[in-house]
Amino acid sequence: MKKTKLYSVGVDIGGTSIKVGVVSKDGKIIAKTAVDTLSELGPKGVVNQIIKGINNVLPEYIKEIEGIGIGAPGIVSIEKGTVEHPPNLYNWKKVHLGKLIEDEFRLKVTVENDANAAAIGELMYGAGRQFEDFIMITLGTGVGGGIILNRKIYRGEIGAAGEIGHTTIDYNGPLCNCGANGCVETYIGNGYLVDQVIREKHNQKNSKIFELLDHNLDYLTPKIISDAAQQGDDFARKVIIDAGRYLGIGLASVVNILDISKIIIGGGVAGFGKLLFDSVENSLREKTLKSLRSRVKIYPAKLKNEAGIKGASSLVFYRALL
Amino acid sequence: MKKTKLYSVGVDIGGTSIKVGVVSKDGKIIAKTAVDTLSELGPKGVVNQIIKGINNVLPEYIKEIEGIGIGAPGIVSIEKGTVEHPPNLYNWKKVHLGKLIEDEFRLKVTVENDANAAAIGELMYGAGRQFEDFIMITLGTGVGGGIILNRKIYRGEIGAAGEIGHTTIDYNGPLCNCGANGCVETYIGNGYLVDQVIREKHNQKNSKIFELLDHNLDYLTPKIISDAAQQGDDFARKVIIDAGRYLGIGLASVVNILDISKIIIGGGVAGFGKLLFDSVENSLREKTLKSLRSRVKIYPAKLKNEAGIKGASSLVFYRALL
Repeated sequence: MKKTKLYSVGVDIGGTSIKVGVVSKDGKIIAKTAVDTLSELGPKGVVNQIIKGINNVLPEYIKEIEGIGIGAPGIVSIEKGTVEHPPNLYNWKKVHLGKLIEDEFRLKVTVENDANAAAIGELMYGAGRQFEDFIMITLGTGVGGGIILNRKIYRGEIGAAGEIGHTTIDYNGPLCNCGANGCVETYIGNGYLVDQVIREKHNQKNSKIFELLDHNLDYLTPKIISDAAQQGDDFARKVIIDAGRYLGIGLASVVNILDISKIIIGGGVAGFGKLLFDSVENSLREKTLKSLRSRVKIYPAKLKNEAGIKGASSLVFYRALL
Repeated sequence: MKKTKLYSVGVDIGGTSIKVGVVSKDGKIIAKTAVDTLSELGPKGVVNQIIKGINNVLPEYIKEIEGIGIGAPGIVSIEKGTVEHPPNLYNWKKVHLGKLIEDEFRLKVTVENDANAAAIGELMYGAGRQFEDFIMITLGTGVGGGIILNRKIYRGEIGAAGEIGHTTIDYNGPLCNCGANGCVETYIGNGYLVDQVIREKHNQKNSKIFELLDHNLDYLTPKIISDAAQQGDDFARKVIIDAGRYLGIGLASVVNILDISKIIIGGGVAGFGKLLFDSVENSLREKTLKSLRSRVKIYPAKLKNEAGIKGASSLVFYRALL
């Protein structure tokens, strides 16, 4: 193994906040911060916020920093360090993010798609450490995906591979932000889950969900649905089981294409826990081809809340290992 | 390149007939034969038929034969030469086909899944010669798929990868032989196309399809639908365009997962020609993620009727090249 410094900086660019951490080679966060993304200010404003966030934590550790890893939404060229068309950042066409950050800090910068970064994080520090191949799903506003083959990220022709959230399970299904219908994301993305509960509120008046919200729907989040389910609320449980079933149907197509049997699921909605995971696995097993059925298995991601920072920071050491 | 002999034998095991050919290194068939599969006799009977077929063409060329390539339905281990659970062969669990044929002819035998063999055939001799990566679809009773990455077949964990025919496009759709619903195969497999025409016969009495059949539905095949479409029959055209649209929807999921932009389509139904190919490409472009949309392109396979034999024979030289 090549000799590297002790730490790297991980930057996780989200639609509302940018999280930055200093992470040790073995995946422990030793300092962290968060700044607003200010995506309404356009690329220049966001880049300034990234720089501000890094400056919050970097100076104290600067001598032992191997490099900076950035997980960004959108299409990323790891060679060029460019980020194109991130879905939740405004007025952002193509930005040479890697170069801009390198020029600022004089450190080696590695940029990767955020879902791929999460997969590499699980590969290096999480549930994927023992696996040669796995599929990583990150559940959030969108449904991200990353494919690990032979312990490397599979990027496809332009680095856009692994968009498992845009596997169609019903071509007449709900309209997705991507323009297609019935993508997995339209069944298990945060917004869809919330909308689904709101649509059913008149039929489910006695659900604990509305009690927990004190009937103010503005506070409705997947976390509330999860809390209600844990208190045994039937409607909340059904929402989670259905979401898992739909994800499992989409994953069956993915498994039939890739013949990869290990699937790691992370992100906020993964907090639904065993109820969700069992539902995904049951549906996946029911729908996958018979020859693959007994082998498929769902694993919860291990990096949890810090997946974004750790995944991004791991890019630095992952790259150093290649 | 390693020195090899001039010819190889290609064996294409179908549900009703086994086609065998002697094929030159540059992909020309110089002798061929066909025997009945007799799948009702079980594995032993089928293996005897394979041997009979090979004996029909082998003796004359025996001195210049590099080896035997076999394309078989089902899950194939290329290392072990085993064939498991082929969907159209009866009472066939797991057969060491490679060893049985090697023992008979004392020639190196390579066994591969038939859809993968077709992909390797196109890679070596057909529409894929110039491509690093492509997806191969073979339209027939089933819808086979093969994935070429870096000019190698992508086989997955147990050699089952590339089952693109079992990509679900509607989880409430028609029941597929695999047990799932709404697989691409249930929209464009031969049987589905024929059934669809039969179901519509009362609403489409004036369609040329029925005229060409002399109203005997027993003779209905995709070829008849194609002939009617070429004569301008609206219903036949609609059947073909719809089938292409459904295949395109499934392929959009595949492209979003794999980020491979070149798709080669072969098999009998590919004889629907431009009408089908345009429909697939339009639907694929409409449904694929924006970042990939302009790059995706459909190519007709080049090996046509002889794809099975040539694909199987190419396994010998493909392997010799590895």
